[in-house]
Amino acid sequence: MNVNGTHYRTIWLHDPGTVKIIDQTKLPHEFAIADLQSVDDVAVAIKEMHVRGAGLIGATAGFGMYLAALHAPGETFDDFLHLSAGRLKSTRPTAVNLAWAVDRQLHAIAGVSTVDEKIAVALKTARTIADEDAEYCRNIGRHGVTLIEQIAARKKSGRVNILTHCNAGWLAFVDYGSATSPVYAAFDKGIDVHVWVDETRPRNQGASLTAWELGRHGVPHTVIADNTGGHLMQHGHVDMVIVGTDRTTSTGDVANKIGTYLKALAARDNGVPFYVALPSSSFDWKMRDGIAEIPIEERDSDEVKYIAGRCEDGSVRKVLVTPETSPTANYGFDVTPARLVTGLITERGICAATAPDIARLFPEFTVKPETVS
Amino acid sequence: MNVNGTHYRTIWLHDPGTVKIIDQTKLPHEFAIADLQSVDDVAVAIKEMHVRGAGLIGATAGFGMYLAALHAPGETFDDFLHLSAGRLKSTRPTAVNLAWAVDRQLHAIAGVSTVDEKIAVALKTARTIADEDAEYCRNIGRHGVTLIEQIAARKKSGRVNILTHCNAGWLAFVDYGSATSPVYAAFDKGIDVHVWVDETRPRNQGASLTAWELGRHGVPHTVIADNTGGHLMQHGHVDMVIVGTDRTTSTGDVANKIGTYLKALAARDNGVPFYVALPSSSFDWKMRDGIAEIPIEERDSDEVKYIAGRCEDGSVRKVLVTPETSPTANYGFDVTPARLVTGLITERGICAATAPDIARLFPEFTVKPETVS
Repeated sequence: MNVNGTHYRTIWLHDPGTVKIIDQTKLPHEFAIADLQSVDDVAVAIKEMHVRGAGLIGATAGFGMYLAALHAPGETFDDFLHLSAGRLKSTRPTAVNLAWAVDRQLHAIAGVSTVDEKIAVALKTARTIADEDAEYCRNIGRHGVTLIEQIAARKKSGRVNILTHCNAGWLAFVDYGSATSPVYAAFDKGIDVHVWVDETRPRNQGASLTAWELGRHGVPHTVIADNTGGHLMQHGHVDMVIVGTDRTTSTGDVANKIGTYLKALAARDNGVPFYVALPSSSFDWKMRDGIAEIPIEERDSDEVKYIAGRCEDGSVRKVLVTPETSPTANYGFDVTPARLVTGLITERGICAATAPDIARLFPEFTVKPETVS
Repeated sequence: MNVNGTHYRTIWLHDPGTVKIIDQTKLPHEFAIADLQSVDDVAVAIKEMHVRGAGLIGATAGFGMYLAALHAPGETFDDFLHLSAGRLKSTRPTAVNLAWAVDRQLHAIAGVSTVDEKIAVALKTARTIADEDAEYCRNIGRHGVTLIEQIAARKKSGRVNILTHCNAGWLAFVDYGSATSPVYAAFDKGIDVHVWVDETRPRNQGASLTAWELGRHGVPHTVIADNTGGHLMQHGHVDMVIVGTDRTTSTGDVANKIGTYLKALAARDNGVPFYVALPSSSFDWKMRDGIAEIPIEERDSDEVKYIAGRCEDGSVRKVLVTPETSPTANYGFDVTPARLVTGLITERGICAATAPDIARLFPEFTVKPETVS
């Protein structure tokens, strides 16, 4: 994607020992590039959300395992690698791509013998994970844009209004994004699209990231408080909702940023189609009941008490928005049950949020038939 | 209610020419009292939300009309009064109490002859509006606490968790509050209650006002992002929702702070009772279709772009949370259809959110039978 006329991915290898990322904690006020040179750097970058988003967490973990292989002492190579794997997996509990990327690296590295081969295969795998992520997201856009084209054709005149929550944009992946990929594809085709951007408290990923990346690409958008979507839908101002997901069960239950479930309920109540865009790496094929099974990350309560932003003097500061003594709670995600999901937009096409239809698109991941309801 | 051991109302007459208010724009970081000495002062205080909330807007408008009468030139008394009435009514479009209080004053003042009498009756009416508001809210608590007692009895052990949105506390009225009045009554009876406080973006009335007043009274509470309620309900952490309303139709449709509708949907989806607490002054007896008829205030988009809070150095500052160039939209309220409302808690008792049941409690306001469906 373009940032001020230059093409960027969200992560890339700069030299054999240096992985570069866009430091997303600095957005939207500053566009800063950061270096990752060790597993520690990578773990901190994921935990402190310098990188975030399902696909990008996976790609970063992939590069993290490459850096682990690069720096692993020869005599304790395997121990170091497995310690690193555990360390990376523990940084964020909800995103399934994280464990998926780490395990893929462990498997690939175990398949060759010498340390040099292991480093080479780790690099190749890290690059493949990143390239696949970008390619899958591009394909999500290719499939998803047909839905937007249908709405545009039906409306005849007037823009297509799409609501999204959090950031499932190219900043959450390696490129294109999941929820935003159909939007970018539509915009690039000349369709008149407009995006309602939920600000997405408490971390404001919508206000700070989605608005920023849409703006850099020139896509018309409006930032709204998370409370607003229901009212907009009641009054016909939303033609479809597209969100991303951090983990989706084989039955179509969707874990995504806290508040997604509320928008799905409003969409259902107002007959607005509610789509979830995801590369298949975000499926958790073993899970079947999202509300009961998907672990929901509880984050630091200070993320609710304090909000960061830019002051008039240009400095970025945190301000306290609650009484000092009031407790706060900070759940990172919620689960939208499959019954509220109109469809899933994947790299292989669009399917219903049901076990059989998901299995139709991804037969090789399907669990044994007798367990598919 | 108590603030650091002292009893306060939110508005009171200090001397014949000075009305005192708690300046709510300073909370939760500073407890400040402000003077209102003219209709202009009152209009600014309402428009800039130094006072806000259905009941308090009404009471403030009542005192505003008294100040208008006090300062009206003898030769153009009536003109000045009607200009003042229009000025006050135009400050906030959604709150029905505003026009109700102004019209009540116009009617009372028109009933007497001399200027001195008009000033006296305006003062008496302003005080009556404030006293009635406090008394109605006290009765809302008396009726609503029975619902909390029933939940406490059913749960046997463990606290009763109540979710609320925005501030329908004593700060929104003259005393007690509407949504909080049953909570204070339960707390004062020794029931183990805990309140989930939606922070209520964009103006954070939950984080800054509800959390503050609950804390001053000692009521256990936790501030959450507005996105959180659905997840909490899915996992059984909410026993009931109580919210206030800025305007309720004679059929039970409820206009309240933007985002209320989303919580009502989640409550319905999870079998959580959803109650609306209101003094009868918040009914708009002429309206029957809330979504079609209730005007929804659009406020300054900067309220979404900037968030005010306290910096580490103690100063209160506004910080920018969006890209500078991203547009924002700011709808103040949404409408929760009556079908999602379990019941209305009024000063006369609890009723269903249906035209016949509302008419049962308030027969004198009921429109002609043939128009009641």
